[in-house]
Amino acid sequence: MDIKSLRSEIELELQKQVSRLDAPRTKPFHEMLTYHMGWTGEGAGPEATGKRIRPLMVLLCAAAYGADWRSALPAAAAVELVHNFSLVHDDIQDNSDKRRGRTTTWVKWGAPMAINVGDALFVMSNQAIIDLKENYPAEVVVKAAEILHNTCLELTRGQFLDMSYEKTNELTAEDYWPMVSGKTAALLSACCHIGSLLGGADESKQDAYRSFGHYLGLAFQVEDDILGIWGDEAITGKSAANDLIEGKKSLPVLAGLSANGKFAARWRQSPIQAEEVQELARVLASEGGYETAVEAARQMTDLALMNLRGADPQGEAGEALFELANKLLKRKQ
Amino acid sequence: MDIKSLRSEIELELQKQVSRLDAPRTKPFHEMLTYHMGWTGEGAGPEATGKRIRPLMVLLCAAAYGADWRSALPAAAAVELVHNFSLVHDDIQDNSDKRRGRTTTWVKWGAPMAINVGDALFVMSNQAIIDLKENYPAEVVVKAAEILHNTCLELTRGQFLDMSYEKTNELTAEDYWPMVSGKTAALLSACCHIGSLLGGADESKQDAYRSFGHYLGLAFQVEDDILGIWGDEAITGKSAANDLIEGKKSLPVLAGLSANGKFAARWRQSPIQAEEVQELARVLASEGGYETAVEAARQMTDLALMNLRGADPQGEAGEALFELANKLLKRKQ
Repeated sequence: MDIKSLRSEIELELQKQVSRLDAPRTKPFHEMLTYHMGWTGEGAGPEATGKRIRPLMVLLCAAAYGADWRSALPAAAAVELVHNFSLVHDDIQDNSDKRRGRTTTWVKWGAPMAINVGDALFVMSNQAIIDLKENYPAEVVVKAAEILHNTCLELTRGQFLDMSYEKTNELTAEDYWPMVSGKTAALLSACCHIGSLLGGADESKQDAYRSFGHYLGLAFQVEDDILGIWGDEAITGKSAANDLIEGKKSLPVLAGLSANGKFAARWRQSPIQAEEVQELARVLASEGGYETAVEAARQMTDLALMNLRGADPQGEAGEALFELANKLLKRKQ
Repeated sequence: MDIKSLRSEIELELQKQVSRLDAPRTKPFHEMLTYHMGWTGEGAGPEATGKRIRPLMVLLCAAAYGADWRSALPAAAAVELVHNFSLVHDDIQDNSDKRRGRTTTWVKWGAPMAINVGDALFVMSNQAIIDLKENYPAEVVVKAAEILHNTCLELTRGQFLDMSYEKTNELTAEDYWPMVSGKTAALLSACCHIGSLLGGADESKQDAYRSFGHYLGLAFQVEDDILGIWGDEAITGKSAANDLIEGKKSLPVLAGLSANGKFAARWRQSPIQAEEVQELARVLASEGGYETAVEAARQMTDLALMNLRGADPQGEAGEALFELANKLLKRKQ
């Protein structure tokens, strides 16, 4: 399975979907979308597009029993458009001025325009999923659309919880899972679910793919949380990017709040400063924050791989899926 | 056709759709949506919900050949959810603090939360349209979803043009139609199109309904533009709400800019003040702004009614459609 050729086909399909706005009166609007997608403007290129993990998952799951992945391209585009819609709105909500090293859409064109850019990407994801009708029976299209829409509601739930958590420290490790299930796991789960549906997997196999994506997302997020506090870069180099300074309610932090010891006392006082990050990370580790997260990551990884083995994907696509999963789950700085 | 019972069924269906967020962890999120929809919070009630014209159109068009309008309820909810998603985002984009006399969602809960409220309403519109699968073949559901999604892209196009127009006075009357086609006419057109599709109308009848909704939307918008400058309230009572003061790029204003006379010269100078509204409205009328708009409203009204006659809706629903159209088209202060 040539991941590189999958990636270029994904890019072509995405460009086709986004070209719906490429008309004389809406040229500047189209340009806002192509900028955010990483195709145009300063810093455009592979670094700016991101890795397109989600559409790759759709295509690999669709190809895992020998079906032609090309038929699933509109669905691959749909999930990536959903992801990007959420990024554009997220950046406004979080007041972020950089995304993948580039100025965010709302900083360039203002929040009102950027809200509309996100809305348009969202609309295009809906249009893309309906484009499946060229390749699949209407019943399958309806099912794929239903999975996508339910996932999008999960995204808004996760986003709501994330924003709510900013305002409180009365949280425990249990509050973590509903938030990341929505914010990270739901869309990866939908990718695998929709991919396997389009690949002709039966219901029980579809369930296995769905669960694989879900736990993959959770494991990935927890790993990310660990690196955000104890990763090499977080502790040494770019300490400004340390999750402790940003006040992120990651799993280790919520575990630390649950433990209600020294870490929790310091956290509740005032924002964390760069100079205390190293010591506070040590305190958090000594109060179980590190261990809780490592153990959770291990469990979620096991569940992800168990479900992928249960799904039993075949051939080159199957190998590529295991490879991609391992790469995502074991990535270290 | 008892419009009142249609309205209460619409409200129930909308509440059912929105209840997807009515779960322990997302109660406050659900409350934001029910507030915006006019069901809860200060000022809740019929005044706050709006007239639900769009879902009524769906149901009346669906019932116009004897089909059961109840089956079309999810589609009725879908178009109203789209309308409300766009209102929530619109209020943020326009910096509006009031909507139907009540504090806007973004003022109450902040723009980040309100962006997410709009997104959730949008997701629910997608879920609602897919709910049609309980009552119609999958092919019909896919078609209805396609119409809805294409319409939503029109909405983002119209919104883009509207926001772009704020920054320039180099506009003519020709720039008006693409904007209002997206902002006002597209969704009304989709209501009639989807309604007639669900009611079993053939393709040529569906086209007539689609055009009816389109021209109805345009005529309604132009009438609104006229009232916004020369309506009794605009000139006398609430002159602060006069479109001239708000700098709205309505059809009369764009016609005035095209004419490039005294009105255009004054408009290009600086924002219009309350004390000059009456005189400037007179100047604009003398330079053709009033006549252009009245003539356009007449044309669009004729086209709307011609298409409705072509669609030839039957029975009580047909009568109700003509009544509703006439009410919308001939409304005076």
